[in-house]
Amino acid sequence: MDETTKENFLKALTKVIPPDRLYTEDEISDDYGHDEINTIFHLPEFAVKPMTTKEVATVMQCANENNISVVVRGAGTGLVGGAIPTTGGLLLDLSGMNEIKQLDTDNLTLTVEPGALLTDIKQYTETRGFFYPPDPGEKTATIGGNISTNAGGMRAIKYGVTRDYVRGLTVVTALGNVMHLGGKFVKNSSGFDLKDMIIGSEGTLGVITEITLKIIIKPEVTMSLLVPFPNFKDAIKAVPNILRSGITPTAVEFFEQNVIKYWESFSQKIFPEDGHQAYLLLSFDGQKEAQIEDDYEKIAELCLEHGAEDVYVLDDVKQQEEIWSARGAFLEAIKDSTTEMDEVDIVVPRSEIVSFVQYVHQIATTENIRIPGFGHAGDGNLHFYVCRDDYDQKTWQEKLTKVFDALYQESKTLGGQVSGEHGIGIAKKVYLRKSLDEVTYTAMKKIKQVFDPNNILNPDKIL
Amino acid sequence: MDETTKENFLKALTKVIPPDRLYTEDEISDDYGHDEINTIFHLPEFAVKPMTTKEVATVMQCANENNISVVVRGAGTGLVGGAIPTTGGLLLDLSGMNEIKQLDTDNLTLTVEPGALLTDIKQYTETRGFFYPPDPGEKTATIGGNISTNAGGMRAIKYGVTRDYVRGLTVVTALGNVMHLGGKFVKNSSGFDLKDMIIGSEGTLGVITEITLKIIIKPEVTMSLLVPFPNFKDAIKAVPNILRSGITPTAVEFFEQNVIKYWESFSQKIFPEDGHQAYLLLSFDGQKEAQIEDDYEKIAELCLEHGAEDVYVLDDVKQQEEIWSARGAFLEAIKDSTTEMDEVDIVVPRSEIVSFVQYVHQIATTENIRIPGFGHAGDGNLHFYVCRDDYDQKTWQEKLTKVFDALYQESKTLGGQVSGEHGIGIAKKVYLRKSLDEVTYTAMKKIKQVFDPNNILNPDKIL
Repeated sequence: MDETTKENFLKALTKVIPPDRLYTEDEISDDYGHDEINTIFHLPEFAVKPMTTKEVATVMQCANENNISVVVRGAGTGLVGGAIPTTGGLLLDLSGMNEIKQLDTDNLTLTVEPGALLTDIKQYTETRGFFYPPDPGEKTATIGGNISTNAGGMRAIKYGVTRDYVRGLTVVTALGNVMHLGGKFVKNSSGFDLKDMIIGSEGTLGVITEITLKIIIKPEVTMSLLVPFPNFKDAIKAVPNILRSGITPTAVEFFEQNVIKYWESFSQKIFPEDGHQAYLLLSFDGQKEAQIEDDYEKIAELCLEHGAEDVYVLDDVKQQEEIWSARGAFLEAIKDSTTEMDEVDIVVPRSEIVSFVQYVHQIATTENIRIPGFGHAGDGNLHFYVCRDDYDQKTWQEKLTKVFDALYQESKTLGGQVSGEHGIGIAKKVYLRKSLDEVTYTAMKKIKQVFDPNNILNPDKIL
Repeated sequence: MDETTKENFLKALTKVIPPDRLYTEDEISDDYGHDEINTIFHLPEFAVKPMTTKEVATVMQCANENNISVVVRGAGTGLVGGAIPTTGGLLLDLSGMNEIKQLDTDNLTLTVEPGALLTDIKQYTETRGFFYPPDPGEKTATIGGNISTNAGGMRAIKYGVTRDYVRGLTVVTALGNVMHLGGKFVKNSSGFDLKDMIIGSEGTLGVITEITLKIIIKPEVTMSLLVPFPNFKDAIKAVPNILRSGITPTAVEFFEQNVIKYWESFSQKIFPEDGHQAYLLLSFDGQKEAQIEDDYEKIAELCLEHGAEDVYVLDDVKQQEEIWSARGAFLEAIKDSTTEMDEVDIVVPRSEIVSFVQYVHQIATTENIRIPGFGHAGDGNLHFYVCRDDYDQKTWQEKLTKVFDALYQESKTLGGQVSGEHGIGIAKKVYLRKSLDEVTYTAMKKIKQVFDPNNILNPDKIL
């Protein structure tokens, strides 16, 4: 960026954003340069913290006029570099737009600003008897970030993903116009579905500034089963049988013993009922205890019929919190076990999970590298972490590329896709390109041009 | 179309489609010229019945080369003229591509061709213990048509709409290329959501030639409640209270006495428990009788607390079939009560249903015209039918325009949208235009250009 452009843009920004929410040079926090996975670092030239849709719209107009690239950031908890300003330019920090604006108990909606944290939405709704079902592991993520990646989480098997809970969006376009998509109504067959195009577009098509979420009534009762199996195949093969029972668990998580070991050493705690090769962790929720008990007893029996070594019923709240917080900390635990890591978040048809996990084990052996992981066994979305450990930089990069190439190719072969819930960002671009045919890829490119003709919104992400 | 173009195109078509599936002039059935509502009639110049994705792709290539407009037709049960070839050209009749190709019991998916009828999908899945939840009134519609309008239906309140059950689509583009969108996997955050853009696009963005549907396990038990109220306001006002109970009925339908009268005279039957001003008809389903009983007893009590005059429990299959088939025939009954009619399918926030119904009553009085209707009270999607009765053509057109203008304006004022589930087609174009702001409308126009640069796919529909 030349100095004149820089000066002009800064002059324009100062007219819109007060000095205490406008940052340049040394005022720019290092946090703005990375996300949670920490493999890329790049700072923006400017950063602003807008507080209203109008401020965002005016900033976008300035950016477009001066051809400045704009990257939107929520809490920075992404894993694929989507919120890193890799081309410099302006960082739009929406963490200040975090108001929970309206609970509508007739329409069962919650209107929020994009910077509201998942944990705040949880607290706000649940203390009032309502429930926002999506449950990604990272509770300090913003709702705007969750919508931008179409975050999934652990309850997707019963409740669906973020997309299923977005009723309405206010979106500022790349040119600084404001679109209102959807609303408080439930059904809609009125023209093209722009709302779903914005969801999951990782800040490349528009800036989300207000959201109307669907909420439901809070389930009164929750309980969980921890089910050990002699090996990962038996654990995973039990899942379709569970889902064919007519009972839909809230979550069906899968993990192996190695991940438990990392967690124990990370947390300095002992995992309950340790010592088995593989586990399913299931939860159930509903309004009535008797109903939930019926359900989990039937599923427990089914698991034992399909090779489970035991079934541990977790029905008190504390026990459940412990085990789910352990599950929630697996990512951190693996991160803590190594010097550096990168992740795959592939999704395959449920019927292909065994093949994929088997393939990961095989690659880990042939490449002599650790690839621990866990996954949402109910929906075929698996998280594996390639660990650098003691490899030098060159060997690590070679091995990582080789492993990634192999895993994404295998996912494609098995009828899967690159990302189940973390998005593409900058880290998975090359694998998305390989996974899509020319016609589909070109259509995506052209859609980017429709929304962002000057390619200023998160310009080098996804495509 | 000039004669040379006509000849060239016909020559090209004969190379792809055998003569017994290619129709011109007198061979073209009158059925191809209208849909279920019967307010518009226009025949195509050519019609073909392709049997494979490849045939569709080649036909689209020929059409694009010769700049011939192409309209896709399933069973012709639409209500907004979406499948009528209003600009002539080619009609692509997909009713022959009606195979149910694969039931995948591990991934809980059903792969079908677009011409498969809802009734066939129902029969196929339910006899095998599975269930395709969306339940639009018109069971002889094709699944392709349902996807093209994002059909909703009566079970949307519990199970969602057609969009929620489409996992994968094979789509032939306007240029004759083939795209595969989605698949058998459950979650996806891999680039822009083209699949949802195709769903609900009414044949204007591509031709759907294969579909992978999500299915679930068939609920073992179904029962219904017929709940009379002293007036429509009390009936509708009970609904948010029902939905806040934590119990989600499968369906919550609303109707008034006048519609029952039309149905009785149409069907020559007596409606059970006739004689009340307004009704809610609810259904419940699940795996266990005791659970369903608990649920409906709680809801029955709630209804009585909120003004219901009585609660009739319909728990035997025959009773339920009778009442739901009556509900399913309301549209036909109203049609039978008049000389000609046109419909609105607006959707408003649930909290605004009373205001909207009140407004309809008021307009009917001031314009001295019958506007009977009914609706999905659980999701704010209302169907009202403006009846011509004995008005002459000129007065009818004037009154219809006046009533439509007023109703769509009111829906917009109440935060609603033009169509909840029937789509826009040609009949609602002007109201969609009025309901959208310039930025959103322009984005839709540009998206049309991305998918169909020569504007040959259903060219004068939606926008």
